[in-house]
This record gives sequence, C-alpha cells and structure tokens, in this order.
Amino acid sequence: MAAGLQAPKPQDLLAVEGMKIGTASAGIRKPGKRDLLVMQFDAGSVAAGVFTRNRFCAAPVHVCRKHLTESKGSIRALVVNTGNANAGTGQAGLLMAQETCEHLASMLELVPSQVLPFSTGVILEPLPLERLIAGLPEALQAADMGSDGWLEAAEAIMTTDTLPKAASMAIETGGKRYHLSGISKGAGMIRPNMATMLAVMVCDAAIEPELLGRWLRDINAQSFNRITVDGDTSTNDSFLLVSTGAKSSSTAQVIDNDAHPDAAALKQAMVLMAKKLAQAIVRDGEGASKFIAVQVEQAASDEEAAQVAYAIAHSPLVKTAFFASDPNLGRILCAVGYAGIDDLDVQRVELFLDDVHVVTQGGRHPAYREEDGQRVMKQQDIAVRVALGRGHAQTTVWTCDFSHDYVSINADYRS
Amino acid sequence: MAAGLQAPKPQDLLAVEGMKIGTASAGIRKPGKRDLLVMQFDAGSVAAGVFTRNRFCAAPVHVCRKHLTESKGSIRALVVNTGNANAGTGQAGLLMAQETCEHLASMLELVPSQVLPFSTGVILEPLPLERLIAGLPEALQAADMGSDGWLEAAEAIMTTDTLPKAASMAIETGGKRYHLSGISKGAGMIRPNMATMLAVMVCDAAIEPELLGRWLRDINAQSFNRITVDGDTSTNDSFLLVSTGAKSSSTAQVIDNDAHPDAAALKQAMVLMAKKLAQAIVRDGEGASKFIAVQVEQAASDEEAAQVAYAIAHSPLVKTAFFASDPNLGRILCAVGYAGIDDLDVQRVELFLDDVHVVTQGGRHPAYREEDGQRVMKQQDIAVRVALGRGHAQTTVWTCDFSHDYVSINADYRS
Repeated sequence: MAAGLQAPKPQDLLAVEGMKIGTASAGIRKPGKRDLLVMQFDAGSVAAGVFTRNRFCAAPVHVCRKHLTESKGSIRALVVNTGNANAGTGQAGLLMAQETCEHLASMLELVPSQVLPFSTGVILEPLPLERLIAGLPEALQAADMGSDGWLEAAEAIMTTDTLPKAASMAIETGGKRYHLSGISKGAGMIRPNMATMLAVMVCDAAIEPELLGRWLRDINAQSFNRITVDGDTSTNDSFLLVSTGAKSSSTAQVIDNDAHPDAAALKQAMVLMAKKLAQAIVRDGEGASKFIAVQVEQAASDEEAAQVAYAIAHSPLVKTAFFASDPNLGRILCAVGYAGIDDLDVQRVELFLDDVHVVTQGGRHPAYREEDGQRVMKQQDIAVRVALGRGHAQTTVWTCDFSHDYVSINADYRS
Repeated sequence: MAAGLQAPKPQDLLAVEGMKIGTASAGIRKPGKRDLLVMQFDAGSVAAGVFTRNRFCAAPVHVCRKHLTESKGSIRALVVNTGNANAGTGQAGLLMAQETCEHLASMLELVPSQVLPFSTGVILEPLPLERLIAGLPEALQAADMGSDGWLEAAEAIMTTDTLPKAASMAIETGGKRYHLSGISKGAGMIRPNMATMLAVMVCDAAIEPELLGRWLRDINAQSFNRITVDGDTSTNDSFLLVSTGAKSSSTAQVIDNDAHPDAAALKQAMVLMAKKLAQAIVRDGEGASKFIAVQVEQAASDEEAAQVAYAIAHSPLVKTAFFASDPNLGRILCAVGYAGIDDLDVQRVELFLDDVHVVTQGGRHPAYREEDGQRVMKQQDIAVRVALGRGHAQTTVWTCDFSHDYVSINADYRS
C-alpha cells in the first residue's frame, strides 16, 4: 500500500568502511521474525544522536542519552530490538536496557557506555531480556556482511512498516570517495519531535564530535522533524549519525569545521539522505496511499509556518479527503483557520493544489474548476501550498493520507 | 452506530412559550431533505451566542456576531440551513448571509439585525441563496407546531448525524414552572473552540441580557467546549441561548443576577442540558462506537489539565485502540508524554481505566492484569482517568473512538 515507495535494491546499497552489521531472530515478540540488529563500529568512530521529547520516553532513550554523554560520542556498538518498546516500564525497564548494553559490551570487550540500545514495538510490556540476550551471539556471528548488511538491518528494524527503508550515497570530494549509508523505520506513532522512530546513518569520513552533533541537529530539523503520519510523538524516536573515520588516515584529515573542503559535500549528502529516509517513512505510513507535501509560505515566523503546516497535515478530515481523492478543499482552509494564528487576515490567504489555484484572497478562485482539483487529488504525490501573506518564513511538512487500512492496522496491531 | 444514543421521544420534548418553530425542504444540497429551520421569538426575547474561534469562520458567524451586538441581544428570529456552510465564500458569502436575514426580516416585519443566520455543511461552495429564500414561506407556514417542532428542528439541522439531538426540562422553582428545550448537531469537524457546530437552547424565563451572556459562557465551558470528535475546529460552531420571558409577567420578575431565587435552578438545568446535548454530539460522532470520558486530575492548572486530556482524546492511536477494544494502554501514556508539559515527572503519573489501576508511578501497576483492561475496553462507555501528581486542577473531555466508519463517512461525504 506504500505511496510510491519501493524496497531498496541490494546493489544500490554501499558498505561503509569501519563498521560491521549483524542481525538475528531472537523471538522478542513473535518467533521467526528478524528482530535484532547489532552494528559494531571501529575504534575512533564518533556518534551523535537526537531523541524524542516525549516525557514518557523509553528506557533505552534514557540510556542512549547517558552513554553518549559519558563516552563523549565514542560509540562502538548499537543494539536494536523490535517487538517491544521498553517504554512505560519504569525502573525495571531502565535496568534491562542497561543490562543489554553490559552484555553486549562484555562480549565485544567494550565498556557499557560505548554501547547504545534502541527498542521499538509495544509500550507498557516488560522487555523479554533473556530472549534478547540469547539472540546476541547469532547477531555477532552474522556480522560483517558488507553491503548486504544494510538491507538486512533495514528489515530487522521493521514493525508495521511494509517495506525496508535504506539508502546509500557515494560522495566524491577533495580526491576522496566517502560512503554514506542509512536505514529508517516508522509506520505509526509518527510525529517526531526531535527525531523519528528510528534512523541510523553511518559514513566513513572522520568528523569531529561537536561538528557532527551540530550537523545532526541541522539535518534533523529539515528531515525527520518535518514528517507526520498520525501526530503521535513516539516514546522511542531516535536518530543516530555515526562517522567511522575509516577513510581518513590521519588526524589532519578530520573534518572539524564547516569550512573544511569536504564538509559541504558531505553535509549536503547527509541532508538529502535524511530527507529520503524520512519521506520513506511517510510513504510507508500506516495505510498510506498518497504522499502529501504541505508547503506553507509567507508566514511571519518559522514557528508559525510549521504550526499551520501541521494543522493541515494532522487534520483527519483533510487526510480522509486525500484518501478519497475528493477535492473537498474547504477542509484545508478550515485547518488554516484553527491553526492558532489569532491575527490571521483570511483575505490574504492563497491556496494552491500543485499548479491549481484554488483560493484567492480567502475565497474560492473565480477560475477554479472542481475537475482541476479532482485531477490533482487523484495523483499519488500531491503538493499543498498555502501562502499566508504575513512575511517571508516558510516550511514544508510531509505527510500521508488517512485510510481504512490505518484503522485496521492500529485496531489489530497487537492481535 | 451511535454509542449509546437514542432518538429523543416526541413526548419527552416540551414546547417553550413565546416562540414558534417551522421547517422546510428547500433542496439546499439534495432534494427531499428537511434542510431549513426557522425559529421565531416573541418581542422581549433575549439571546446570547458564542461562536467558533476559527479564523476562517463562516459568513453567517460574522453576521450573527454583528446582529447580536447591534440588537443588544433582542433577537426575534433565527434561520438555519444545512448542506452548505457558507464558509470560505468571501465577500459574496457575507452578502448572502445578510440577504437571508433581510428577506426573513421583511417577511416577519422585523429589522434585519433581529435575525440570526446559521449555516452548516460543505465549505468553499457558494450558498444557493435563491433556493434558501424560496424555502422560507414553507418554513413560516409550518411554524407553531408546539412540542413537535423541537424534534423536527433537531432533524432539520442534521448533516452526517445519524440521530436527531433534542432535550427538554421543566424547572419548578419559586412557585413557577419554566420550560427549557434545546437541540444540537455535530458528527464531524468537532473540536469546538467556544462552542459546538450548532446548538440552540431556549427557555421561557425572563433573563437579563448581560446575565444570560455570562451564563452562556459558563455553561459552554463545561459542555460544548469539552468535547472532541476529530480535533477539527469547525468554521461554523455556534451555541445560542435564548430566553423568551413568556413566563415572567412583569419586569420585577426578570432574573438579573445570580442571587435571584430562580437563578440557581435555571442555570443548573441549563448546564445539565448543555452537557447532555454536547455528549449526544460525541455519542453520534462520525463512526463512533464508544463514548469515552477523559478525566485529568492533579494538574497544575486548568489549561494543563485540558492540554493532557485533549492529547489523549485526539490521539488516533488511542482512539483506534478503543475501537478495537484493545487495552493497548501504553498509547495513553505516550499521549500524556507528548502533551507538552516539559517538567512532567512521569514517576508521579497514575492511570486508571474505570476502576482498574493500570499504571502507578509511571509504570505498569504490579497487580494490573490484561484481562481487567480488556473487560473495561469492551464496554460502550469508558472512563480514562489520569492523575498527574502536580496540583489540584482537573477537567473532563468527552470523545469517541476512531473507526472504519469515520474514514468511510469522511471519504464519501460529498459524493
């Protein structure tokens, strides 16, 4: 059902030097599903992460934050389980996330703070720690699969996703060729506030930790923080960016500021990949049949632009109209009206659906014909553009439609 | 499909002295549907209204506000059409709402500012003014049907509602017997911000205009402003309270302050009726199969309590879990976590489902058993109670579940 999304082709994915990937079927929730992922990073690797702002954030999110601080980003491994979110599990859940790290650390001869844990799945149920730990040897044995690993990794982190999400890019700059590969997952409970459900991007450049962190926040703001499926900010959202440094032979080559000759090309590639992985989550949103870009322009501030874009992107009425390919476009105006801009002058509002001018000066455009709206609504990819006539700020939020399948998927998720 | 709602019985509805009701089939959107309602009020009647805060509020909302001010609440008639919201229709729509009032005023020998117009239906389409005006004589001819009129009135304002919503109460106080009757409609685009889609309550007491306005705002805050079906604040929400004064023979009897001997009984009856009419809208919410009261207590402020209650009541994941009778209660915790209370101490959060203690100190209650949660989730009426451990403020928001039928209804609404 995914809206214009295809599974990544194995030959399009690139191995990243300085890391290994392994997966296993640990039977966390259901037997036979690949539900455990371990990534190992060579010494000298640097990681930066952003996490959900949900106050009920999951135990692994707490541990990730702690370990990133303690290790100053010198992360050597990460472990992901699906099937159980280890959220709403209190002190016991926290201990289990820590024990997971301790076990993996001792198997790899690391200190626990060099390991990051991630969980995704059902909330409020105890993590089956023993099954997770029992699965680790299989994941380590399977490690080092080169580029094939990325596809398996993408599969291992799927929950209600219908397709794995992975991407790779080669960046040639300054006589060097860097590899950047990444995976993401999503599907439901998607309105990231800091980062998406789970995304990991790894490159083999050497990037100074503080710069990596700054890049991560910039990249995140333009990608994972601009998607929404259902407006529910998950307890487990995490986005991790790792640089292994394997392609940099000396400390002189470390990229430590934006003026470094390789910086612009690398960062641009990271932004592109993050957008691609974020948009893949929306295209594979639960029950999605349409991919909608909501662009708000002429806003007085970035916050205001986002406020209006999210009001449209979250409206169940707007989303069901897209599902039905019904140009019931008054629903979009209605959402603009309740977005919370108290001094909005509706007479200055313009609305476009792709190239079709629907609303001018707050009312139906005289030249607007229902069949033009209908034509665009039938497309799989649709752009909604709203101009507020208040200033120069703008933003784009990506979302999907709201279908029968969303209800089916979420009514049946645990059964 | 309505969750525990039944059509009002004609014999339970009471005529209110000092007013007349008439309806007609004007063919506004579809032929043969009763889609036009006119209420006439005797001289001396007083009205107060609250309206949507949506910036794209409909043309009739603008005209209502203007006429209530100009006439100082001395309203003599109201006219409601369904099938077309006259919203997003710009200056032309405004003129049509005014013309509607002018026509009815001239037929009843009133001034236009004594007439209030209301519209509900599709947004962004021109109001078929000629058909509306052509239907007025039929509505006036049909007027004065006594108590039968209330049921017909409730039917005339239905859009995607599956059942008419009307209620009556007799209030005996101070040797007098007042009648209070009211109607409401809703179904979708329901997250009133000031008032619901459309509700009218009329009583035959004489109430001083300023006091009536104060009561209206109090009553609204406890009723229509505490319901949500889909989080979409409509362009047309209106709640009107009218007192005809027919039961008060002299100015000495006018109720002009809260200490008046009849005030407490009357206001209490109005609050009860408003809650009943508001809850009827939720029970008949689009696709609703469950009625859910979300109670938030121990909040630091009223705003905070409402913020958390609406986060839960709007979450599509929570609402689909109710639809499925699935005690996937981590989704409720997740919504509490992203409700926007930055300094929430999750260790103090308690969650109850009716009498079942689900979460204590932020984690699963040791005694909680899935089958207890399952038992409550299967009920038609469910209370969710969240204690935040932060203060003494509390509120209740009423909502319904999110079902396949919601998607069907809204995907097919215009077809």
